[in-house]
Amino acid sequence: MKFVVVGGVAGGLSFAARARRLDETAEIVVFEKGPYPSFSNCGLPYYVGGDIPDRETLLLNTPETLHSKLNLDVRVNHEVTGVDAKAKTVTVTGPDGSKTTESYDVLVLSPGATAARPPIPGLDSPKVHALRTVDDATRLGELAGDAQTAVVIGGGFIGIEAAEGLAKRGIQTTIVEGSAHVMPPLDKEVANMVTGALGSLGVQVVAATQVKSIAPAADGPDLVTLSDGQEIPADLVVLSAGVKPATAAFVEAGIEADERGYIKIDEHGRTNLPDVYALGDAVTQETAVTGAVRPVALAGPTNRAGRLIADFILDPENARPLPKPLGTSIFRVGQMTAAMTGANRAELEASDIDFVTIHTHPTDHGTFLPGAQPMQLLMHFDAKTGKILGAQGIGGNGVDKRIDVIATAIRAGLAAPDLIDLDLAYSPPYSSAKDPVNFLGYVADNVLSGRLEPWYPWEFEELGEDAVLIDVRNHPEFNAGHLRGAECIPLGELREQAAEVKTKVGEKTVYLSDDTGANAWIGAGILTAAGVSAKVLSGGVNTVFAYYFENPGAVLEM
Amino acid sequence: MKFVVVGGVAGGLSFAARARRLDETAEIVVFEKGPYPSFSNCGLPYYVGGDIPDRETLLLNTPETLHSKLNLDVRVNHEVTGVDAKAKTVTVTGPDGSKTTESYDVLVLSPGATAARPPIPGLDSPKVHALRTVDDATRLGELAGDAQTAVVIGGGFIGIEAAEGLAKRGIQTTIVEGSAHVMPPLDKEVANMVTGALGSLGVQVVAATQVKSIAPAADGPDLVTLSDGQEIPADLVVLSAGVKPATAAFVEAGIEADERGYIKIDEHGRTNLPDVYALGDAVTQETAVTGAVRPVALAGPTNRAGRLIADFILDPENARPLPKPLGTSIFRVGQMTAAMTGANRAELEASDIDFVTIHTHPTDHGTFLPGAQPMQLLMHFDAKTGKILGAQGIGGNGVDKRIDVIATAIRAGLAAPDLIDLDLAYSPPYSSAKDPVNFLGYVADNVLSGRLEPWYPWEFEELGEDAVLIDVRNHPEFNAGHLRGAECIPLGELREQAAEVKTKVGEKTVYLSDDTGANAWIGAGILTAAGVSAKVLSGGVNTVFAYYFENPGAVLEM
Repeated sequence: MKFVVVGGVAGGLSFAARARRLDETAEIVVFEKGPYPSFSNCGLPYYVGGDIPDRETLLLNTPETLHSKLNLDVRVNHEVTGVDAKAKTVTVTGPDGSKTTESYDVLVLSPGATAARPPIPGLDSPKVHALRTVDDATRLGELAGDAQTAVVIGGGFIGIEAAEGLAKRGIQTTIVEGSAHVMPPLDKEVANMVTGALGSLGVQVVAATQVKSIAPAADGPDLVTLSDGQEIPADLVVLSAGVKPATAAFVEAGIEADERGYIKIDEHGRTNLPDVYALGDAVTQETAVTGAVRPVALAGPTNRAGRLIADFILDPENARPLPKPLGTSIFRVGQMTAAMTGANRAELEASDIDFVTIHTHPTDHGTFLPGAQPMQLLMHFDAKTGKILGAQGIGGNGVDKRIDVIATAIRAGLAAPDLIDLDLAYSPPYSSAKDPVNFLGYVADNVLSGRLEPWYPWEFEELGEDAVLIDVRNHPEFNAGHLRGAECIPLGELREQAAEVKTKVGEKTVYLSDDTGANAWIGAGILTAAGVSAKVLSGGVNTVFAYYFENPGAVLEM
Repeated sequence: MKFVVVGGVAGGLSFAARARRLDETAEIVVFEKGPYPSFSNCGLPYYVGGDIPDRETLLLNTPETLHSKLNLDVRVNHEVTGVDAKAKTVTVTGPDGSKTTESYDVLVLSPGATAARPPIPGLDSPKVHALRTVDDATRLGELAGDAQTAVVIGGGFIGIEAAEGLAKRGIQTTIVEGSAHVMPPLDKEVANMVTGALGSLGVQVVAATQVKSIAPAADGPDLVTLSDGQEIPADLVVLSAGVKPATAAFVEAGIEADERGYIKIDEHGRTNLPDVYALGDAVTQETAVTGAVRPVALAGPTNRAGRLIADFILDPENARPLPKPLGTSIFRVGQMTAAMTGANRAELEASDIDFVTIHTHPTDHGTFLPGAQPMQLLMHFDAKTGKILGAQGIGGNGVDKRIDVIATAIRAGLAAPDLIDLDLAYSPPYSSAKDPVNFLGYVADNVLSGRLEPWYPWEFEELGEDAVLIDVRNHPEFNAGHLRGAECIPLGELREQAAEVKTKVGEKTVYLSDDTGANAWIGAGILTAAGVSAKVLSGGVNTVFAYYFENPGAVLEM
């Protein structure tokens, strides 16, 4: 059996290594168009930022080590430029430009993607680099050595990680993001906290704005002009505004792809052509929650796909299908961690799923032990079945843990109240007796059982002048920032005043608020017992601060 | 509806708070025999150790705040000393010794447990204190202020947490543990690493040894004599050698309990008496993995039980049964974290479950980013179905996350290979593209599909002189420590020598080793292709070092 693998980084090498482990006698040839196999593309921003001081550290293996350990034939600087699916051969362009032909029994495509290059005048300035390859990182690292200013085009994962690293090096850095907020996969109230964390690092974020042009300068910084007219000097520019799959040669050979060139695969990684498989950043997959078909360019699923495709080919009886991706992802920004899993609000709204969202503001561990760090969590779940659809979090320690636990729960098909039953590890340095994940289950259970009706910051402006808003915090906290028009009735006084409230509001709904939602929920019980209809602000005024991060004064009196 | 609750800490107050949220009009009386309701018992060792500087921090609520927020009638220094189940009354002894009677519609027992007091002469020395109450912590904290030496009797959770805190205060601390190793719920190879971490803190561990007597001294330290003859001076002694349930009055009233006094409950917390429920440290439950019935004295499940019992009484249609506990738990020891979930080896061996164990030695995140910390993981799973039965871990950052993810997987009924499918959050500061949990799934899949046959350190001594041991590391690593009698054939040379090995060993099994198991597994593939039967040392020589921690020279040549 002869395998030809296109791409020698995450997906391709993962396939090749697994194929060798399953078949000691197979011939395995890996073509990598770049000079390095098996480098950590996820590590590149950390090299530019200086967290990884030594470039060699990024290079996990060489063709020699891969030959010695796994008997792989890895050919770097070799690009596969054509496929003849009938003859079962590929055309390969070598480092000297010469073309050769290689036959295969099975062809595995993991060609990856390259940086999208929007039509911005000046984008070919020598100060502008994408961050997809070791060479990109090397050049940006060199520029960063002397830079005082930087512009990052695109506030996705790579853009934010690069900006974090540049800011830590003392470089005045600006992220220009075309969407309404950085990290568009995050819901607004979480993404805003990323903007805040970037601000704490000294990174300026200009959202809902495009780069219009770049004026290269021979001496001194380039001048980056934005669609709002701003001009920003930049000693280096990171281009991280999306990608396009490197699949032209394969599409031309008849491999089925979508209109953007992403290859279509089935649940075992098969393309439409016989004995041709594909994986990684260049393919689309059906996502787990909404069923939307899209690329999910993440290292974890790609590594896994390499293994599972090898299993399917070499040991089909023990093989498992590629799981539908959840899109679980994470990034660090200063002292903060932001992470997400499953579908976000926009994806759910685009689907026909009837969903509910809850917000909580726990700490990573019990506040009685010094050092507890706050976090913000939100979870989306099916309004009828309770099935967990997605979750996001941002905060200090422990955000990664909670999102991983929820990602596991989603994969296992748990409903939100099932989170109550999780036996999570508690002692004071690690969690609370009710872990934040258990607590999400408690809140979801209250909602699904009809006991707790949440309302949301984005509904506030539609409530109208005569809406009844009651904040159950004590007066000092109330005075520090409350919804416009809210009345303060501290929880300790609400029982006595419940009858009075009923007389005053009659059949109208009371919109309750507090800091995080917990006390307003007790308040709702008190009011309900008095015959008053009451809703609880999801996550309390903390969620309002997050949602209206740029202008809390729009809805809050402070 | 009138609720009487016995015990005002985790379980009792959790029940009371939930009952109030579900029923604004109920009468809820809570009797707490101690002076404080709602204190954090899990925080006590951290007060003694000085991590929590202010004693008041431990007191989460007062009777006044509980009345104001939740309209609870909390009576501290009131002990329930009798129950008349027919009359539905309890007898209460007040702070002045007077007895009163209180009627109930529903009685909820969360009396907790007290420290077991083994028959050790001198145990009544004023320097000896348990660590179960705020007053215990206060007295130990006072003694610790001047202490130079301390003895901790019992190396369970509280003992280790107390020892950690005392050592950090500069006190020469010795743990005396009667079992073969500290923290008996951990398997030996993990518990040994706890002993190592304690040693790094300067804590001496004396295992498999009892305290024989304590000679109190008016001036200077008490003298603690051990069963091995050692005499250890102690300015303070922490008594943390087990507990007994505080249930005598209830057993006398006819509540069914086991021979040790632990109350029997059903899946909704019901005792054998009508309208009498129980929860917390004083009850037994059927555990999830083996079905063994035993007390599971953990804050998380107890808090949850309080809520679920209230749900069952007040909103039975929406109630869920108490989940069978997994016993997930965790503790910090210096810079290390140790955690576990599910059943351990001893529990599994006592059951009739046919299980397999795997060991891995990953890092918390990719090693290319500086700061990666090693951890040791093990997982037990069903040899036929793959169902996950238990997992344990010890290491630096990220152990808590991996154990929580596996605890979630166990609760959801996942099989070990299903861990492959988990979409866990990866970027370089948080994990690897193949998270350690995914990796456990990969290894388990190899074992279950019959591709990988593990062998274990504890089998070494039974292998006999003529066993064939091959270590596939390079010579320098081999020379740093390898199994007695092993031959070094580096992986890079094994392919060439495979035929020779076959000629030499014939039908005999080759016992392969390396550092962590990964390369030996490649080696097994090479040998298998050459017709050699090969087993892979589970977790490599790293596991041997852990298992033979006290005397690695017994099996290793270094």
